[in-house]
Amino acid sequence: MARINENFKKLKEGYLFPEIHRRSVHFQKENPEVELIKLGIGDTTRPLSPAVVRKMHETADEMADEHTYKGYGAEQGLQELREALTAHYKDYGVNLDPDEIFISDGAKSDLANIQSIFSGDAVVAVQDPVYPAYVDSTVISGRSGSSTDNGYEGIIYMDCTEANGFFPALPDKKADIIYLCSPNNPTGAVATHDQLKSFVDYARQNKSVIIFDAAYAGFISDPGLPRSIYEVEGAKECAVEINSFSKLAGFTGVRLGWTIVPDSLRVEGSANGEVRAMWNRRQTTMFNGASTLAQLAGLAVFSESGKKETKELIDYYMKNAGIIKEGLSALGIEASGGENAPYIWAKTPGGMDSWKFFDKLMNEAHVVVTPGVGFGKNGEGHFRLSAFGKREDIQQAMDNIRNNLKI
Amino acid sequence: MARINENFKKLKEGYLFPEIHRRSVHFQKENPEVELIKLGIGDTTRPLSPAVVRKMHETADEMADEHTYKGYGAEQGLQELREALTAHYKDYGVNLDPDEIFISDGAKSDLANIQSIFSGDAVVAVQDPVYPAYVDSTVISGRSGSSTDNGYEGIIYMDCTEANGFFPALPDKKADIIYLCSPNNPTGAVATHDQLKSFVDYARQNKSVIIFDAAYAGFISDPGLPRSIYEVEGAKECAVEINSFSKLAGFTGVRLGWTIVPDSLRVEGSANGEVRAMWNRRQTTMFNGASTLAQLAGLAVFSESGKKETKELIDYYMKNAGIIKEGLSALGIEASGGENAPYIWAKTPGGMDSWKFFDKLMNEAHVVVTPGVGFGKNGEGHFRLSAFGKREDIQQAMDNIRNNLKI
Repeated sequence: MARINENFKKLKEGYLFPEIHRRSVHFQKENPEVELIKLGIGDTTRPLSPAVVRKMHETADEMADEHTYKGYGAEQGLQELREALTAHYKDYGVNLDPDEIFISDGAKSDLANIQSIFSGDAVVAVQDPVYPAYVDSTVISGRSGSSTDNGYEGIIYMDCTEANGFFPALPDKKADIIYLCSPNNPTGAVATHDQLKSFVDYARQNKSVIIFDAAYAGFISDPGLPRSIYEVEGAKECAVEINSFSKLAGFTGVRLGWTIVPDSLRVEGSANGEVRAMWNRRQTTMFNGASTLAQLAGLAVFSESGKKETKELIDYYMKNAGIIKEGLSALGIEASGGENAPYIWAKTPGGMDSWKFFDKLMNEAHVVVTPGVGFGKNGEGHFRLSAFGKREDIQQAMDNIRNNLKI
Repeated sequence: MARINENFKKLKEGYLFPEIHRRSVHFQKENPEVELIKLGIGDTTRPLSPAVVRKMHETADEMADEHTYKGYGAEQGLQELREALTAHYKDYGVNLDPDEIFISDGAKSDLANIQSIFSGDAVVAVQDPVYPAYVDSTVISGRSGSSTDNGYEGIIYMDCTEANGFFPALPDKKADIIYLCSPNNPTGAVATHDQLKSFVDYARQNKSVIIFDAAYAGFISDPGLPRSIYEVEGAKECAVEINSFSKLAGFTGVRLGWTIVPDSLRVEGSANGEVRAMWNRRQTTMFNGASTLAQLAGLAVFSESGKKETKELIDYYMKNAGIIKEGLSALGIEASGGENAPYIWAKTPGGMDSWKFFDKLMNEAHVVVTPGVGFGKNGEGHFRLSAFGKREDIQQAMDNIRNNLKI
């Protein structure tokens, strides 16, 4: 008789976004005349770039014609797109082979699925605060114990606090799989070359694997900051990099990303190329490739006009980030991030707890943010603001906060 | 230190399609003047229907406008599409709630991922011959032993032979997860109501779960044959149904499918709705929804003109199937399937072994088919033909076989 995967029972309720939703809906019911401005969820709002849209139309027409219709593509993705990505990495000084790049339907799936090529007893380390999906997929896959007030047993939480500039010290226990996210969601902190190097050295020494979530790399403008972990020497031996078109080019609804498993990535007892071959086998067995429409649209992102328009998109959101940071600063609210990242990580005034401040901000300024504690214990006393809103909403939100928040 | 998932080492080389490819390339190199006709792989060749293409253009325009741009959608899919599917099932007399339908990026991913909500020690049963992805994902997830000449230890292979009309007897050992595919790939056999009922009764009695792959249901024209397992009483208590737009509407490159986990599905020790809730949690944690473009295109499949055009697509392929069956019959080659399914399952003349006949057919008639033994031991002495080719290719292939194959 079939039984359920008991690991699901360990999962805490997905508390954060449902709870934000519940409180907003309740407020809206009590105050139907108020228009809440939502700076919580990191969802893009700008339309797709003209180059991308042109390519979508072109592809739709090709699919309508028997001479150009496309059926199944390779599970690993379109060769042209994999090649466009190698060219993109070359701009950072990173040399990759197209065979090391696997096109996906977005970062989220692969950030979870990548665990399946490693042994079931692997110890997982995550930053705290952290994007909840890394943790939940670790629990579902049986790589954790029970949940406690401070997270799940068996998972190593690496503190990211003001004191360490929101980049963690090396794990104090042996970690086999280490998730690092830079630019960071939720803190907006960007790891320096030296910071990444400390983890690459640790991983090589301990034969750990770093899962590097670079979904916000497109927002880095400071040329001194690494946009790929492979800018660090030795990273190809120990790191998988996962990235996405979602925030780079507004593809949150289009669904497209990529995962890099270098040929030279080695784990304990594996031969050269074996880990890459395993991911290839996993993908060809359990995935049928990203949508051809999304892939060709993604190719347009790297065209001459696509690059220019994509930069404009990012500039728009980064200008939003600047408006948010200035606004907070004028009010004396301390905030970090938002310079090479689309998230601003702010301290609640007077050390108020996250949820209390969430309610206060919603009630007084009609602005919805994300309570920091929802991302882990180190998020307490913080809140996250997203720069992905529309300009007028961002401006209105900051006006509301300035005029109506009683600090 | 990280180690690999050792289950990958148990996997036999993905032999079938690479080997077909290797032999075809070799032949083509030796005979550059010959045009090989490929009736092997089940990939669609007809363009998308006009209704679908119109919707794609419309969606591209919406994504280009800030007032209609769409970012993240629900991981479970667009509500309109889930509702269109409930209406579609109502035509078969099956009542579903939209919440029981999860939109996917195609059947393949979910056919594999669904295992993750069940316990790791579940015993898996498959039909033999069988679509290889069920088996490979079972091995990767650790639900098998080592590979032998007759398949993997620990997996129950249910024989599908001419003697039982290519529908298996009930498993002789207790099976926890049972994959059934109807219309069947590769045999083209369609299970009757009574045949499915025998498995539903077995599953209810043994608290097993049936994973029903209905990806070819759209090809059933005989009103007496079930197009959904939920047409069988009690199936909602024990069956997940997985389906796809790939073959139904030519979406092999577009990527769209759906999975049904009924609220009343129960396994040992689970509460009502718990299995559905677990799949929901799995999908919201590890998947970000199918592409909005694909989903809206899928919605167009169920529009008035979409339905009509989709039927024309299916009629085209089924006419191909008829041409293949007639051609084989005229040559005295016994074949089944191809009546309510796009695959024809044929016996090699004189009981020749599958690969030998593959070579003979390629050499003499310049036609590439799929050797039956590639789908399992019961496929020996058979070959699969796909009706998804272009009409002129199908006709040319049958002419070549008639004129040049030396039987």
